[in-house]
Amino acid sequence: MNNQDRLKALFLSPRSVVFVGVSRNTGPGALNPVENLRAWGYKGDIHIVHPHATHIAGVETVPSVSKLNNPVDLAVIATPRGTIPEIVRECTEKRIKALIVTNQGFSDADAKGKELQRQIVKTALSGGTRILGPNTLGVSNAFDGFMSSFMPLERQELPIGVVCQSGVFFVGSSQFTGGMGIGIDIGNGCDLGLVESVAWLGYDNRIKVLVIHAEGISEGKRFVDLAKDVSLRIPIIALKTGRTPWGAKAALSHSGAMAGEDRIFDAVAHKAGILRVDETQELRDLVWGFLRLPPMRGRRIAVVTLTGAAGIMLLDAMYSRGLAPAGLSNDALKTLQDLSPPWMPISNPMDIWPALMKNGMQKVYGIALREALADPDVDGVLCVALGLDRDHQRFFSSVEEIQRWSMEASKPIVVWVYGSHADEIRIRMHEHGRAMTVPTLEGGVKLLSKMAQYEAWRRQHA
Amino acid sequence: MNNQDRLKALFLSPRSVVFVGVSRNTGPGALNPVENLRAWGYKGDIHIVHPHATHIAGVETVPSVSKLNNPVDLAVIATPRGTIPEIVRECTEKRIKALIVTNQGFSDADAKGKELQRQIVKTALSGGTRILGPNTLGVSNAFDGFMSSFMPLERQELPIGVVCQSGVFFVGSSQFTGGMGIGIDIGNGCDLGLVESVAWLGYDNRIKVLVIHAEGISEGKRFVDLAKDVSLRIPIIALKTGRTPWGAKAALSHSGAMAGEDRIFDAVAHKAGILRVDETQELRDLVWGFLRLPPMRGRRIAVVTLTGAAGIMLLDAMYSRGLAPAGLSNDALKTLQDLSPPWMPISNPMDIWPALMKNGMQKVYGIALREALADPDVDGVLCVALGLDRDHQRFFSSVEEIQRWSMEASKPIVVWVYGSHADEIRIRMHEHGRAMTVPTLEGGVKLLSKMAQYEAWRRQHA
Repeated sequence: MNNQDRLKALFLSPRSVVFVGVSRNTGPGALNPVENLRAWGYKGDIHIVHPHATHIAGVETVPSVSKLNNPVDLAVIATPRGTIPEIVRECTEKRIKALIVTNQGFSDADAKGKELQRQIVKTALSGGTRILGPNTLGVSNAFDGFMSSFMPLERQELPIGVVCQSGVFFVGSSQFTGGMGIGIDIGNGCDLGLVESVAWLGYDNRIKVLVIHAEGISEGKRFVDLAKDVSLRIPIIALKTGRTPWGAKAALSHSGAMAGEDRIFDAVAHKAGILRVDETQELRDLVWGFLRLPPMRGRRIAVVTLTGAAGIMLLDAMYSRGLAPAGLSNDALKTLQDLSPPWMPISNPMDIWPALMKNGMQKVYGIALREALADPDVDGVLCVALGLDRDHQRFFSSVEEIQRWSMEASKPIVVWVYGSHADEIRIRMHEHGRAMTVPTLEGGVKLLSKMAQYEAWRRQHA
Repeated sequence: MNNQDRLKALFLSPRSVVFVGVSRNTGPGALNPVENLRAWGYKGDIHIVHPHATHIAGVETVPSVSKLNNPVDLAVIATPRGTIPEIVRECTEKRIKALIVTNQGFSDADAKGKELQRQIVKTALSGGTRILGPNTLGVSNAFDGFMSSFMPLERQELPIGVVCQSGVFFVGSSQFTGGMGIGIDIGNGCDLGLVESVAWLGYDNRIKVLVIHAEGISEGKRFVDLAKDVSLRIPIIALKTGRTPWGAKAALSHSGAMAGEDRIFDAVAHKAGILRVDETQELRDLVWGFLRLPPMRGRRIAVVTLTGAAGIMLLDAMYSRGLAPAGLSNDALKTLQDLSPPWMPISNPMDIWPALMKNGMQKVYGIALREALADPDVDGVLCVALGLDRDHQRFFSSVEEIQRWSMEASKPIVVWVYGSHADEIRIRMHEHGRAMTVPTLEGGVKLLSKMAQYEAWRRQHA
């Protein structure tokens, strides 16, 4: 194991952990991280430092770090800020090499907080100890069953890595990324930061897509080199906040991060192959697009639609996002034209409603999808499908056809479902098949455009 | 009743209707509009014209329109396009004053289709008969229990009016507008169009918000004058598609609409107070924002947040969308400062996490929201709230506080919920209280910005 691997193991899968500052209460509302950790089935040793209690959550406590009898990999510290320099000193003396400092009130706060932060970093580093935080929920590693958060979290072994500067990405992981396998909240980033976290998660084989929430970027050159190397392996998606003057000013007092000029981040992202998103819905769609879909190897789209109006909306969105309708082969178009009434001109978007009124949904949808997937000029397929109640859905089996064709497809299929039962059917499509559903038409176009951007960058830099 | 009211009644709440061209089949998949209409509890008389069958869905048929014995308000015609000119002629002879022509294959298709369309318009108008369509699902009026669609629709008496150029807004009304009370699909708009539909729905007291999906705009001046007058009553939200060269070209062959230059539509919208949206998620949020929330009288926002990171994202979005953080009164800030640790600077966004760690969620959230709502410098409030499992939610009762304060609030409260149970809690908030939840932080900002735009326009033109 090299030094980075050793450090990663101490923080993300420690064999033993000590909590310094834990509520004596247990149960809902107690925000007891020891209970949370137990709920995750953590296999290592748990210690607690508490000045008064003798037992908390079934663990015998010691009154101070210096009284610990066993060696400890990681300390999770959550005591009032004034007490922390002394606790950090004790930890270094006990040769605890990894600290997570949860509390707020440091570079995110006043001058005294900034001074305290400088102090603890100095003490730790001079003793060979590293710090994550302060102002952090710490880490969350569903694969190894370790987490340091006082907020309860769901354990989901998903191949999604998250590096963030706020616990909102842990607690709200359903909203931002649709779940999370390993998360690292760098908080104020007083010592360990973006570079270390991206290095740990970017080369972890359990992680297939890496999400970064950053309020600022330091160590520009080192970060670019690292991110570039990681981007060749797996996609990195970044939500850079503090991107406007108002946001940047607030970021300074939130995590103490210098947001820097937004165009600097743009340049970094461009060099390093990082996919930047500004909106959170796009973030979630993109994470799951990469997890579910084959690569998007170009920018040419075939559209299979049940409604001309949706085709027009997709064309508008494609025009704005740098995708283009594929020039479908004459054979493909002729096959569909033969199924359509003679007055219905078939082009791309393929509006197959008149054809299926004559020949049935299953047959026509299947043929259109087959032709789209087989056409060498097509890089990805956007589908419009119906989601009705069970009785009607039998006759409008677009969803079933998409599921079937998606299993073997080497091109991404993205689906927008409409109708009274669309939500229910979207969940079913998420569970079966390899297509990806999106909540809006525009969302499908944004997704495929960003996926194409990633492949193009990777091809150029491979 | 004036002429417009009479025409509106014939199309939206006819006392009797004849279907020309109905499947002999019934049950799911038959797409039998008579069955759909029955399922809606229609109280009027239903007639069917069919050349062969004697009974369909329990209705005795007649072999042709000319054989109808009773006077009929409205005919819904769905036969092959070549037969339609003759049927229209028979209808005019029978003094049927309102026709809905469902079929495709007219100005949306080839030269022959365009000629057929010209022909039926000429025949109808010379007989004093008006046409909706062709290429339309027709109308859907949940209040009076009448609909002409062969696709099954949910009957929901919601104060949402929809005028569209595609049936996707009927079948997919959950996706686009979150339901629909009255819908008019103008299809190709060969005779009746945007102007008549907006006049019918814009002055209907059951409609509180009007949505327009348009691929093109004709009758510019008449439309602007009408829309301007309607906008003074209720908000009009428009999704203009065919806004790019590719989309515009496709619109021409979809509904035969001349999309016109996009900036012309912008100018029309600006003059008439129409709120233009380009993305469908924004459309749905805006519809429900207007239905649920008090007016947004200015552009100054108070943010109540549990996380600094979300505050920064909101500031970024506000900067981009022309909203500004309100300068909260010193009293408000001091009240919250006193609840916070001394090192935590309180400003707007109000990051109340440290305060509630000391004093509990319910107390602190309630106070922050009370101060935000009471401050004369605040026009609207954006809230970040937690959605956890039932046990933990008791201790993080942000949602309950928002529901309570929303009941009496004269300012809009928009809420983004995060956490493992956020979806469930968003549904609950939709059912109780008068706050509005949005799926993303940016969505909340877009919503309040557009609502402010509407109030500003209305104040200026009142």
